[in-house]
Formats: sequence, C-alpha cells, structure tokens
Amino acid sequence: MPDYEFLLKGLNNSKKSIGTDKGLAKIGDSIVNLIYSVAKSIYLTKIRNFKIAIRTGKKVNQIILSNALKNAGFKGEYAKSRANAHDMADTVEALVAYVWLRNKISIEEMIDILVNNFKGEFKERKQEIEAAINAFTELLIKIIEIID
Amino acid sequence: MPDYEFLLKGLNNSKKSIGTDKGLAKIGDSIVNLIYSVAKSIYLTKIRNFKIAIRTGKKVNQIILSNALKNAGFKGEYAKSRANAHDMADTVEALVAYVWLRNKISIEEMIDILVNNFKGEFKERKQEIEAAINAFTELLIKIIEIID
Repeated sequence: MPDYEFLLKGLNNSKKSIGTDKGLAKIGDSIVNLIYSVAKSIYLTKIRNFKIAIRTGKKVNQIILSNALKNAGFKGEYAKSRANAHDMADTVEALVAYVWLRNKISIEEMIDILVNNFKGEFKERKQEIEAAINAFTELLIKIIEIID
Repeated sequence: MPDYEFLLKGLNNSKKSIGTDKGLAKIGDSIVNLIYSVAKSIYLTKIRNFKIAIRTGKKVNQIILSNALKNAGFKGEYAKSRANAHDMADTVEALVAYVWLRNKISIEEMIDILVNNFKGEFKERKQEIEAAINAFTELLIKIIEIID
C-alpha cells in the first residue's frame, strides 16, 4: 500500500482539526460510498449462499453516518460544537479518509468490518438503515482506536 | 489484496455484458470518484512542490467519462448501441469496477495513472475537464488491455 501521508500536511493532528477538515471529508465521502457499496454487495451475496451475486451501490446518507458517530460516543471529541447531521457525517468521512491516507487501514479491511457487522436481509429501507448505522458504529470504534 | 471475483457470478464475461452491467456501474461510480479525488489532491499538491497539501473531492461527471470512452476507441465494443453520455459513463464505471473486483488493478495503481496523465493547473473548469478526459482515456486504455 502506498503512503499518502503528505496529503495531511497542514493538519495540526488534533482530534478536532482532523474531524472538521473539509477536504478530508470530501475524500472520505467517496471512500464511504465505495466500502458500503461493496460490503452491501458481498453481504447480500453471502446470505444467498453465493448462489447468485448481487452487485449494488448506494450513497450513504447523513442519517447513517451521524447516528454512527453518536453511537460510537465520539461526537464531542471530533465534531465541531453544535454539529448538525451534515456536520457529523462530514466528521465520519474525514476520519475514514484520515486513517486510509495514513495507511493505517485498507479499503478491504473496512469492507470486512461492515460485512461482519451487518444483520438482517435489507428488505425494508428502515432495516437497512439500522444495519448500516450498526456497522458504521463498529467501523468508527475501530478507526478511533487507530487514531488514539 | 482480497478477491471479490465471486461478485462477478452471473456475468457472461462478454465485453457487452461487462460494459452494460448496472450493478458494476454502481460500484464503479464510487471507485471513479475516489480515484479522481485522491489523484486530483496529489496532483495539485505535487505542482505546489509539496509545500502545501491540497485535499479535495470531486464527483466525476458524464462528460469526462463518456469522452474518455470515445477517445479510448472502445465505445462500440463495450457500450450498448446508441449509448448516450449517461450510458457511456456507466460503461466506464462498470469496466473500472470489473478489473478492481477481479484484483487486476489496485485503487493506488489507478490513482497513479491519473496523476501521471494530468496536465495544467486546473485553474479553469474547462482546463480541468480536458485534463480529466485525457487521464481517464489513459486509464481506460490500460484497463481494456487487462480485460482483453
């Protein structure tokens, strides 16, 4: 894996400056969508015992990411004060980008964590959102362990 | 790198079936946005001699991807007949996802190809689009070499 650490120049590496960096959030946005799309495809293929392959993609919404941040219990440390759902989603995206650019976790490891923490059959939208919040909470806990 | 080849089950592996698979295009959409965001960040940081780091993200639009497919000269083989810009962009996304899922190219290798084929300073939107078309054309040529 290559090292993109030079892209972190100028960040003072405090928790708030990582969690509120707009550029990191932009990079993290596409990482989050990628890992979710692949993890969802793998999971839905797995629960069908690999008899048919499901290939799907999904933009991960603010509700999922902001709730994951709240559940993981790190909102106060990493998000800006009085953060709304949008700000909190940006914080999650920034944290994901930060550990990936520092080469501390791979795309594939993040996909594995999501797959291993999904539940249910994703038949209803509400059920999928709950499963996604749960899986991203676990991913965040792991990421924050890495940063701490 | 892990192997996600099982996600390709059901594809008959003809050029058209790869290039017109909707699920692959969805997965590829976030890969394309990720590699472009990181490549653009690296490139803009590089042309500033690494003195300051630029972190940015960008959704890659249909104009860029459809023109790259036309320039690479593979529209007829991989896209559906009478494909419009949207269809052609989907085809590029599907091809990107296909080679990545088959573990034939890494995210990092794709980022490198884009960085090495960017030109100019991206100061005007038009200039950035031209640079992006050029870089994605080169990436596609490489990807189609892999598939062929």
